[in-house]
Amino acid sequence: MSSLIEVGIVGGTGYTGAELLRLLARHPQARVKVLTSRQEAGKRADSLFQQLRGYCDVSYTAPDPEALAGCQAVFFATPHGTAMSMAPALVARGVRVIDLSADFRLKDPAVYRRWYQHEHACPELLAEAVYGLPELHRHDIAKARVVGNPGCYPTAVSLGLLPLLQAEAVDRGALIADCKSGVSGAGRELKLGSMFCEASDTLKSYGVAGHRHQPEIEQELSAAAGGPVGLTFIPHLIPMNRGMQATIYARLTRRDLDLQALYQDRYRGEPFVDVMPAGSEPETRSVRASNTCRVAVHRPGGGDTVVVLSVIDNLVKGAAGQALQCFNLMFGCDERTGLDAPPAAP
Amino acid sequence: MSSLIEVGIVGGTGYTGAELLRLLARHPQARVKVLTSRQEAGKRADSLFQQLRGYCDVSYTAPDPEALAGCQAVFFATPHGTAMSMAPALVARGVRVIDLSADFRLKDPAVYRRWYQHEHACPELLAEAVYGLPELHRHDIAKARVVGNPGCYPTAVSLGLLPLLQAEAVDRGALIADCKSGVSGAGRELKLGSMFCEASDTLKSYGVAGHRHQPEIEQELSAAAGGPVGLTFIPHLIPMNRGMQATIYARLTRRDLDLQALYQDRYRGEPFVDVMPAGSEPETRSVRASNTCRVAVHRPGGGDTVVVLSVIDNLVKGAAGQALQCFNLMFGCDERTGLDAPPAAP
Amino acid sequence: MSSLIEVGIVGGTGYTGAELLRLLARHPQARVKVLTSRQEAGKRADSLFQQLRGYCDVSYTAPDPEALAGCQAVFFATPHGTAMSMAPALVARGVRVIDLSADFRLKDPAVYRRWYQHEHACPELLAEAVYGLPELHRHDIAKARVVGNPGCYPTAVSLGLLPLLQAEAVDRGALIADCKSGVSGAGRELKLGSMFCEASDTLKSYGVAGHRHQPEIEQELSAAAGGPVGLTFIPHLIPMNRGMQATIYARLTRRDLDLQALYQDRYRGEPFVDVMPAGSEPETRSVRASNTCRVAVHRPGGGDTVVVLSVIDNLVKGAAGQALQCFNLMFGCDERTGLDAPPAAP
Amino acid sequence: MSSLIEVGIVGGTGYTGAELLRLLARHPQARVKVLTSRQEAGKRADSLFQQLRGYCDVSYTAPDPEALAGCQAVFFATPHGTAMSMAPALVARGVRVIDLSADFRLKDPAVYRRWYQHEHACPELLAEAVYGLPELHRHDIAKARVVGNPGCYPTAVSLGLLPLLQAEAVDRGALIADCKSGVSGAGRELKLGSMFCEASDTLKSYGVAGHRHQPEIEQELSAAAGGPVGLTFIPHLIPMNRGMQATIYARLTRRDLDLQALYQDRYRGEPFVDVMPAGSEPETRSVRASNTCRVAVHRPGGGDTVVVLSVIDNLVKGAAGQALQCFNLMFGCDERTGLDAPPAAP
Repeated sequence: MSSLIEVGIVGGTGYTGAELLRLLARHPQARVKVLTSRQEAGKRADSLFQQLRGYCDVSYTAPDPEALAGCQAVFFATPHGTAMSMAPALVARGVRVIDLSADFRLKDPAVYRRWYQHEHACPELLAEAVYGLPELHRHDIAKARVVGNPGCYPTAVSLGLLPLLQAEAVDRGALIADCKSGVSGAGRELKLGSMFCEASDTLKSYGVAGHRHQPEIEQELSAAAGGPVGLTFIPHLIPMNRGMQATIYARLTRRDLDLQALYQDRYRGEPFVDVMPAGSEPETRSVRASNTCRVAVHRPGGGDTVVVLSVIDNLVKGAAGQALQCFNLMFGCDERTGLDAPPAAP
Repeated sequence: MSSLIEVGIVGGTGYTGAELLRLLARHPQARVKVLTSRQEAGKRADSLFQQLRGYCDVSYTAPDPEALAGCQAVFFATPHGTAMSMAPALVARGVRVIDLSADFRLKDPAVYRRWYQHEHACPELLAEAVYGLPELHRHDIAKARVVGNPGCYPTAVSLGLLPLLQAEAVDRGALIADCKSGVSGAGRELKLGSMFCEASDTLKSYGVAGHRHQPEIEQELSAAAGGPVGLTFIPHLIPMNRGMQATIYARLTRRDLDLQALYQDRYRGEPFVDVMPAGSEPETRSVRASNTCRVAVHRPGGGDTVVVLSVIDNLVKGAAGQALQCFNLMFGCDERTGLDAPPAAP
Repeated sequence: MSSLIEVGIVGGTGYTGAELLRLLARHPQARVKVLTSRQEAGKRADSLFQQLRGYCDVSYTAPDPEALAGCQAVFFATPHGTAMSMAPALVARGVRVIDLSADFRLKDPAVYRRWYQHEHACPELLAEAVYGLPELHRHDIAKARVVGNPGCYPTAVSLGLLPLLQAEAVDRGALIADCKSGVSGAGRELKLGSMFCEASDTLKSYGVAGHRHQPEIEQELSAAAGGPVGLTFIPHLIPMNRGMQATIYARLTRRDLDLQALYQDRYRGEPFVDVMPAGSEPETRSVRASNTCRVAVHRPGGGDTVVVLSVIDNLVKGAAGQALQCFNLMFGCDERTGLDAPPAAP
Repeated sequence: MSSLIEVGIVGGTGYTGAELLRLLARHPQARVKVLTSRQEAGKRADSLFQQLRGYCDVSYTAPDPEALAGCQAVFFATPHGTAMSMAPALVARGVRVIDLSADFRLKDPAVYRRWYQHEHACPELLAEAVYGLPELHRHDIAKARVVGNPGCYPTAVSLGLLPLLQAEAVDRGALIADCKSGVSGAGRELKLGSMFCEASDTLKSYGVAGHRHQPEIEQELSAAAGGPVGLTFIPHLIPMNRGMQATIYARLTRRDLDLQALYQDRYRGEPFVDVMPAGSEPETRSVRASNTCRVAVHRPGGGDTVVVLSVIDNLVKGAAGQALQCFNLMFGCDERTGLDAPPAAP
């Protein structure tokens, strides 16, 4: 028992927090020691999340820096603003931080301020934080004290575009990502748009004028592309619980490339990226509750437009699963630990 | 009673046929005289479609050319191939034909053959057939003997792009239509992909390698644009009954234009196109069971990419409602007749 | 125009309020003159409810007793407690009140207090209020100054059981109503249980310990049965927008009866009750957006248990539609006015 | 590798077959050696079921008795009629059979004939077959050569009623089970009623005149009750993928009992029955993709009617999971093996 890695979760009442509890329940090397919620303090987690009955006997406690400092790793599953206020003290005491909010994703504090309307609380820690996309930053993640876990849209879009951008195969100035997300992406907070009767049997675009995941995607894609990208990013709300697809459009600049081989080579050995056979169309349910991203690359009609289909579970590879993948890297566990259950469909 | 326009429906067991029955039930100037189905002959339509109980007392009969010839108008709600085999004889006897299948949409018989794998049966009638999009061909429809009623995707995409193309405001060679459709678009035939457990709580692209609506969209857009368009068209299956959104991306070539004014001017007076206020995001349920198309035009970040959101009910403006709109034009009824019930949401 | 009946709606931001607006938009003899919402005052209703664009140009105003007193009829689509505070003054000025909340349903103020935890504000007006189920109280409704519009569950259960109870055909002491409701029954207020991700792809019983519709159902059934009934009532939340089914179980005491004939006789001439053919199983979508209740009566295996299936749209026959039906009776309009559009399925 | 139990699956193209593949993929002591499908022979299972990519590399083969005889256990996930034709030869060669169809559930061949319209092919094997409900027949299952795996409805209803019937606490002649099932219960065969547009945003009763699970439930309940039961069983189709609830009504004959204690005592130590705390209402998603049955017992208003809420995943505890639980008992594995992943919600 003493050899288990002791873990804290700050803000465990949302969907990503509950998902962390589900995944950690099967992680043989980790144990949730502290689970905080100011509002639900004293309640068992499985009284809020019936599905955890029999798998998780942790109770919520009010956030206590001392208790959290006794953990080896702390996950933040909080609204933005919380992690950056608590992380410096934890890091100072040797706790490794994995933040599922946006606080440690944007390298440039000015960009953070523009999109989140307040100053970043610890720019120096931000400077050393690592963007938690293992397919790009595996080695840095392993050594990181603070990981900024990617957003769901940035994960789906980045994994879809990386091979093309790194191969300089497309016009990086004219990228389009038409993204479709299940409703859990909006979180468990009460919002009119997340109500069943507002979101079922319908769909709509949202955030057309600007979405906070845009600068995050641009940051990572620009780095991969070796220069600034131009991206049109339109998210859509879809009547499904989980699941996300990025349908990506780009203009080919190198027509000689074997796109299928490009993708297979780029992701060879990646445990959580599945390059589908040529001609395939992945469905979001095929990754439900799993950490896999499935990608298919198409060139309709043999023309100059390449179309990439990239699907993930927004709560797993788009949030809690990717955080656990980073955790595994940081603590020397096999990267797949706790992430090996097959998806369930239908 | 003698003044009612007598109508026939061939193939009234699918969703578009049932939708015609629903809409015609409220049309004060029309009466369904003949409703055919080889398989269901002898049954009342409301025994198949419980929702019609109390509104429709018609029964199916086996297709009988003589009975159909006694109608003033015949709708075909059949798989492709049927209408073109029966239309010539009906037209010869003065019956006006509105075909909801693909038989009379593609002007070029060679294009028809390529996409539908058989010869067109009556190219001469095809030559005079009018494409039933009132917003483009209102006057020709009024006089037509044969109308080829548009497909659902072509309707949503065309209404979304017409103002831009007619104003020569975008690069017509690089159009992208990312389309999302409810499952009723796949019809009432038994198909694995249309099963509840295959289509719910998931989404996927389909037909990426080529979809039969592509040539139809290109035909109409090219005519509107004054030259051949280049279109990437990717449809997606969404877990909802009805509803369709086309999210359209185009590169602006004229940056001086007031796009909002362009759309409002183009559709001023159109009874079934609602140009949303600037900054709006239409939802598909806002047109559920109605003939309205809602369109919003955006220019995210003030850049060179224009994004158009166009939503319809695929069974109404995308099929039966548009057919009835054409019928109204052809028989001198007010264009809105039978199409004036407000959408119901949620 | 002067001949239109001028109508007020208090609390028009919920689903029943929006449904009233939808139905009244097609009512040729009524006009919404006043629509109140403290919170949305100044906004157009169609800015909240996109589906009303083109059908309704009313705007919200802050509640103003003077303005409401200028109407001939006022609908309350408010939480309980509001109508009873405002109705006496309106009635005193000759306005007829139709309350869609629970304020005027329970005849006994003590029962009201027990279930709603506060005193009734106007027991004298309660005493004269008529329970707005036209199939039971048509003539009293026509003359009423105040109508307490029935709850959705009470409507479905009462219409299902009336023929049996009035014929004294079942043991009135051992009735069971297993009810299933779409999520719109919970209203448009923000509640965790009404969120898409809480209510979709799942179901559950709720209110097993006691639901406020229980005393209302018992009141009406006891009156119909000529003595107190014993009822077990268990509601279930179902992942659908609209629709409700009561599956009713009762023990037959008269085995000689032709149950099918009993139901057909009882509801002969009723415009909004459809007794299905023997052996039928109604589906909730067959009444979607319509005021019809479909009922089927079964006696499985020819035994002593009678099973009644009763389906309604909870927002229409279970709320706004029934209120409009009462309105029609009160103002001498044909009972079907504004309620004649066929349901749309799928 | 030689120590793995080699398993065959006959009919692995349906939802229960796919579910067996998913669960067996994580079973450390078993290996799928043979997977048959006449129609899909030659294809990989993960080409039909995208979610299995990376977890299952088995391919379908045409059914071959010799190959199946080389397995230690064979699961039948076939329509009724197949297992009874193949089981005798397999059993004769020492293969243990777990049949997920109805062939080995009904003890009385005459009852089988009445409900399935043909003679039972091997009444002698039927006579020794064990009904695979571990909570009733654990020890017999462990020794069985043939297990008839229970239907989904019988599992949910039996687990809900066993404590009451075994304690002789209710009138066994007047039981009511109002059951609600997700659409996957109808299988993966093409059926109109299972289409998305027929089953979504609606609900309906079905099989009111008689459902094949009725005699199976009665058989097991009568044995448990020590005498014939009288059961009214009404199933409902609910718009969700997986999940089933039985809402059970019975008349108490012993009012002294502590029902909560009765249930807790009866199921103490059962790995897959979770007796919920008093006052609870389980939701079907809380057991999604898991083998748990959650049960709650209520006595509304302290009256004579007891209400039991019993939820399972119809594809797991109602089919493949229960079969695997039986397999574990038969082969001496821990009963939970391969069945320990926590449910995923939302």
